[in-house]
Amino acid sequence: MITIDEFNAAKIKAAKMIKESGILLTDQEAERIDVADFGLSNLNREGIQIMTHLATNRISVKILVLFPNQTEPEHWHPPVDNDPGKEEIIRAISGNLRFYIPGDNNMSEGFIPQGKEHAYTMKNEVILQPGDQLTLPPGTKHWFQAGEEGAVMYSYSTCVRDGFDKFTDSEIVRATEIKY
Amino acid sequence: MITIDEFNAAKIKAAKMIKESGILLTDQEAERIDVADFGLSNLNREGIQIMTHLATNRISVKILVLFPNQTEPEHWHPPVDNDPGKEEIIRAISGNLRFYIPGDNNMSEGFIPQGKEHAYTMKNEVILQPGDQLTLPPGTKHWFQAGEEGAVMYSYSTCVRDGFDKFTDSEIVRATEIKY
Repeated sequence: MITIDEFNAAKIKAAKMIKESGILLTDQEAERIDVADFGLSNLNREGIQIMTHLATNRISVKILVLFPNQTEPEHWHPPVDNDPGKEEIIRAISGNLRFYIPGDNNMSEGFIPQGKEHAYTMKNEVILQPGDQLTLPPGTKHWFQAGEEGAVMYSYSTCVRDGFDKFTDSEIVRATEIKY
Repeated sequence: MITIDEFNAAKIKAAKMIKESGILLTDQEAERIDVADFGLSNLNREGIQIMTHLATNRISVKILVLFPNQTEPEHWHPPVDNDPGKEEIIRAISGNLRFYIPGDNNMSEGFIPQGKEHAYTMKNEVILQPGDQLTLPPGTKHWFQAGEEGAVMYSYSTCVRDGFDKFTDSEIVRATEIKY
């Protein structure tokens, strides 16, 4: 749960970071930025800000914003009906960004949020510089984190079905509850 | 056919327009910009410049650049095997841009290239301002054109199979021939 004041402040901060990255963002789009705390009630530690440019039954384009040292919890996109699962390509635009995917443990720049070792199992670190792209095939377990500058990235994908995403952390609730 | 000098000059001009629009473009990506004259040998009249960020079997992201008053010829994306045809969403980023799609003839800002009336049959004009998005369902006949400033836009789509695109102009050859 986050308060409406936290929610609004996060939207404003994310919009500023998107504009500073050079990405075109209209005022109407800035209003539509979504904020996710994954039900963990500690947005700046584990959470993300999302601007959805489009989402059809076949493709989706989002801008994702991580605040400094903010972490998106580990999750994966499972098959849904005839869909083999979401294929996602990340394109880093600004700031510093690390992804964690299947492979050898080579973590050096990032950190697992304190006390959450059980919820972060992927430790193969991929550093993305602005202009770098990373493909996440369907079902790939992943989490990601910004460094001191925060990070702005595109997420290009097949059909988004957030409600079907699987998270390693059993305490996660995907829908953000806002306290007014 | 275009000469290698025309091809290289168009790449450089397109890269400059992309960067001025605020879109991140790496030097490697600038090198990979493609130039299409559709076999009509009059690039500045009918042609387009394309930077493909990604193209998988499921999704594709491109930047499209039109020079001032340049026109992309009328075409559509037919079904291919089990695919109902490419679904495409255009997002205007900079400059001035007009699309022509099925509907009533309301052309006022654009023009059909001289002597090519037979090759441009869609006359429902949609003006796209920066930040505007237009969805083209599979099979939608369309052409588009920049105004005096040229135009930079994103094309987000399902799988790209350019070789299967259908053009109204029977003289069109999709692959650009370059004269060295």
